[in-house]
Amino acid sequence: MQLYSFFNSSTSYRVRIALALKGLTFDTIPVNIRVGEHRAGAYVDEINPSAVVPAIVDGDITLGQSIAIIDYLEAKYPEPRLLPQDIEARARVLELSMLISCDIHPVNNLRILKYLQGPLGLSAEQKNAWYEHWIAEGMAGVERLLAKHGHGSWCFGDQPTLADVCLIPQIANAQRMGCDLSAYPRAMAVYAHAQTHPAFLAAAPNRQPDYTA
Amino acid sequence: MQLYSFFNSSTSYRVRIALALKGLTFDTIPVNIRVGEHRAGAYVDEINPSAVVPAIVDGDITLGQSIAIIDYLEAKYPEPRLLPQDIEARARVLELSMLISCDIHPVNNLRILKYLQGPLGLSAEQKNAWYEHWIAEGMAGVERLLAKHGHGSWCFGDQPTLADVCLIPQIANAQRMGCDLSAYPRAMAVYAHAQTHPAFLAAAPNRQPDYTA
Repeated sequence: MQLYSFFNSSTSYRVRIALALKGLTFDTIPVNIRVGEHRAGAYVDEINPSAVVPAIVDGDITLGQSIAIIDYLEAKYPEPRLLPQDIEARARVLELSMLISCDIHPVNNLRILKYLQGPLGLSAEQKNAWYEHWIAEGMAGVERLLAKHGHGSWCFGDQPTLADVCLIPQIANAQRMGCDLSAYPRAMAVYAHAQTHPAFLAAAPNRQPDYTA
Repeated sequence: MQLYSFFNSSTSYRVRIALALKGLTFDTIPVNIRVGEHRAGAYVDEINPSAVVPAIVDGDITLGQSIAIIDYLEAKYPEPRLLPQDIEARARVLELSMLISCDIHPVNNLRILKYLQGPLGLSAEQKNAWYEHWIAEGMAGVERLLAKHGHGSWCFGDQPTLADVCLIPQIANAQRMGCDLSAYPRAMAVYAHAQTHPAFLAAAPNRQPDYTA
């Protein structure tokens, strides 16, 4: 399997965690989104028409979008499961995963921050306030969901699920941007727990071949 | 079943389409996001800790996040299926659905547009340029995915799937905002086809009890 990935991309990080949890080996093909390699013709035409990272190539299938990739991995390589089979438990995992994937991550990713400072001409302070605002909005929701439905040492239980796969990169990203996360103790406890798990450590940005400090 | 919904919310619209396709009846409980009803204490505490629309109550389960809701409906009420059972076909449907749900919709929803004009003090022209920019970015990806993998009268085949459930509200939203969509003929052909389908018509904003012109 091949993974098109950027070390600091949260969505790439999600897929790297899922691959590591399932014990799947892969070759990393770095795509430097800081210099626009994800928009290059050959990448868009042949690998990922979404023009973002990540993408995987697994045998005959070439697939983009991190959640679609992880759902595919779950179907093709079901063990260990990242989504519970119980309908309600699965719904809880997906609810938190979608809160992160749809309501938090997209509004703070690199292309958005570039547009704020480029075409809109905003200051670094305004960009940072934007970032912190949407982290605070979203993480408050995460914390409320965990308070209401969370249990165990991970978000939902004693085995990592898609919710953890989404949460850990989001928190790592927010920490890197200097956000105060002290208002989210349940989420931070899960984050601390993940730092003891080899799959989460192996997937971290600083363990990737394209990592730069 | 109860659906907490706002007539013009794309994510509510998605769930309304899914419910209609599956022939499920429900009571609409309007949540006026224009005046902040989605942030009211009782709604956040008891219905949706994500503090957004939509949410459903189905028997003992109360659930937010449109994609999680539709996945739940798919598990609980599987016919007709909105996600193919074939692994690769399912992956294609999810890839396009996630492109819309993660890369397009979140950066242009009401709370973002309000922040641009409120705290950031941008003009209506700047807000509209923002909207059009992200529609153009995202819809180009949609069109590329459809060109590469699309077939049949819907996005993927001759029965509507989650991809269509996500695409139609996004196009309706972009049309309402006055975007030029002529560069996406495949997507627009699917949109035109959906206008002949009773489930998509029943789910449209102008057919909702809280609709205002």
